[in-house]
Amino acid sequence: MERDQRKDKELNIKDYREDFRTLEFKNDRLYLIDQRILPNDFSILPFETSEEVAFAIKDMIVRGAPAIGGAAGYGIYFAAKECRGDFDEFLRKAEKVRSSRPTAVNLMWAVDRMVRKAKETNLDLKSLRKEADSIVEEDIEMNYEMSRIGNEVVRPNATILTHCNAGALATCGWGTALGVIKYAHYSGKNIFVYADETRPRLQGARLTSWELMRANIPSKLIPDGAAATLIRDGEIDCVIVGADRIAANGDVANKLGTFALSVISKHYGVPFYFVAPITTIDFNCPSGSDIPIEERDKDEVRQIEGTYTCPKEMDVLNPCFDVTPHQNITGIITEKGIIRPPFDINIEKIKKGKSLF
Amino acid sequence: MERDQRKDKELNIKDYREDFRTLEFKNDRLYLIDQRILPNDFSILPFETSEEVAFAIKDMIVRGAPAIGGAAGYGIYFAAKECRGDFDEFLRKAEKVRSSRPTAVNLMWAVDRMVRKAKETNLDLKSLRKEADSIVEEDIEMNYEMSRIGNEVVRPNATILTHCNAGALATCGWGTALGVIKYAHYSGKNIFVYADETRPRLQGARLTSWELMRANIPSKLIPDGAAATLIRDGEIDCVIVGADRIAANGDVANKLGTFALSVISKHYGVPFYFVAPITTIDFNCPSGSDIPIEERDKDEVRQIEGTYTCPKEMDVLNPCFDVTPHQNITGIITEKGIIRPPFDINIEKIKKGKSLF
Repeated sequence: MERDQRKDKELNIKDYREDFRTLEFKNDRLYLIDQRILPNDFSILPFETSEEVAFAIKDMIVRGAPAIGGAAGYGIYFAAKECRGDFDEFLRKAEKVRSSRPTAVNLMWAVDRMVRKAKETNLDLKSLRKEADSIVEEDIEMNYEMSRIGNEVVRPNATILTHCNAGALATCGWGTALGVIKYAHYSGKNIFVYADETRPRLQGARLTSWELMRANIPSKLIPDGAAATLIRDGEIDCVIVGADRIAANGDVANKLGTFALSVISKHYGVPFYFVAPITTIDFNCPSGSDIPIEERDKDEVRQIEGTYTCPKEMDVLNPCFDVTPHQNITGIITEKGIIRPPFDINIEKIKKGKSLF
Repeated sequence: MERDQRKDKELNIKDYREDFRTLEFKNDRLYLIDQRILPNDFSILPFETSEEVAFAIKDMIVRGAPAIGGAAGYGIYFAAKECRGDFDEFLRKAEKVRSSRPTAVNLMWAVDRMVRKAKETNLDLKSLRKEADSIVEEDIEMNYEMSRIGNEVVRPNATILTHCNAGALATCGWGTALGVIKYAHYSGKNIFVYADETRPRLQGARLTSWELMRANIPSKLIPDGAAATLIRDGEIDCVIVGADRIAANGDVANKLGTFALSVISKHYGVPFYFVAPITTIDFNCPSGSDIPIEERDKDEVRQIEGTYTCPKEMDVLNPCFDVTPHQNITGIITEKGIIRPPFDINIEKIKKGKSLF
């Protein structure tokens, strides 16, 4: 196993950046790829008010915790522009953006950062624009760093299972879980990826497949129910997924279906990793049971592409996320290192700015 | 808890029979509800050759292990009609029906029973027609019996999780898992049902929802990924599902996604029941790893209602079933009683015609 012992090649990630921008700010407008219609259509939509940005987040034109944070930054910039110096009005508009989705904490984090900057600068638009740009640039840099750090858990020839989409489309660029996967692929590790289609919104089918194919990563799409047998049969070397909110004890909220994967992975001894920037940690949230879980429209389950797949009157439960208890987690890959058990103690270290290395 | 101790009311099931026929033989034709287009459209299609019946099974116009067995009986009757006394030709046609789907053993069982009858009677059409009718009538009677027996595992006010469709549509009438659920409901147990939508073919959404609503059973449809959290949170009192093939050691093949549910149910101490007639047991199959698992067309995952949900060229793995190991099973409800651990010994008893009571 000469290859296993060789030090991982350091990759110049910028050479491998995707050829699309999930979000881009130019001419005083925020441009977002419309993720509701991928992969059949590719369309970039312009947004120029805080209310439009809140709608884009709510309707999942932009989705993925870090990408939502990036978009929200510009939403707050627009709010500052719209309020014409009325700070109460600004706060009302900011709150509208902040409450557009309840689970991913990066949204609240980005809005709070922008509001702080607005207070500091007395709503100075140039400073706010720069702050929003920084959120985006820092997110991309953090993704690069996470993928460098996360690469160490991927052995050569590994088969990796991922769920939902935690790629460039879920972030301001490059990706969290898919960032680690792309890094491993481009550095020649000869990996193979199974992507859960991820009902009900099918982000795995619509978005992750699209990103995997563009990156030429050998992969297969599977119905969510197929993962368990692959895990049991030893076909999966590790599970790598993104995260929407991490509690102080290490419990993680992520896309519906993640929790089940974690139980099965633990049962069969398969390592289970989350990849997320430190901004995804909610230090004020003691445990997973304190994370609010968004329940979305019943028609997301009742309809696909506008066609009912069940009787119209059928009642539905459509929770958007679930919580993986820290006991099922091997590690949380962040830009500050891999958080491993005991999670509460190591997350406390991060809170205090201590190193994990 | 007076109610708990009261002896279960004996139900006259025939008073509650559904108002549709999954399969019906009349005027020398087999009529099948087209299950591919439910619930948006209701259409009954006629079939009059063995090849047409094989197609109906393959394309899932009729599906569900016992319903497939029922349809196959008439397929063999048609084969006998078509072969004009040429027994080799008859066997070739019978084999075509027998191999239309690989996993559900009721199909092979029904074909073998019909072929035996054909040999005994020298291809007598009247006898074969009667034999095919018997398969259907016996299946309905077995379902009634299973639902009477299975009712004992359902406590009053129970919340039951089911997966895929194991109702009247999956059988010749009444249903296996859904038969037990209907019995509990009609006997006044005040139950609530969560139905997994069951990707990729969405039998839970399309078929089980439809049956639950027609029977006025309080219920909600959920994405498959939502079941794990309900189980963990104590919202589910028991899981009741159908079966496609039961190995001699008690391992059970059923619709993709069942295995994951069984791991999670076992982990959180929730009872897990299969409901299936004895004909679903393959005494010649030592264990689950010997059950052939059908892999179906990749476009079942890539497309929904004819629209691609991922890039057209994306590779897909689409296993139709998975295997639940007997260690995860609380009991297998049959018309001869509930098979409980040790499964190998109790299944051997059934093979020898001994009673389980």
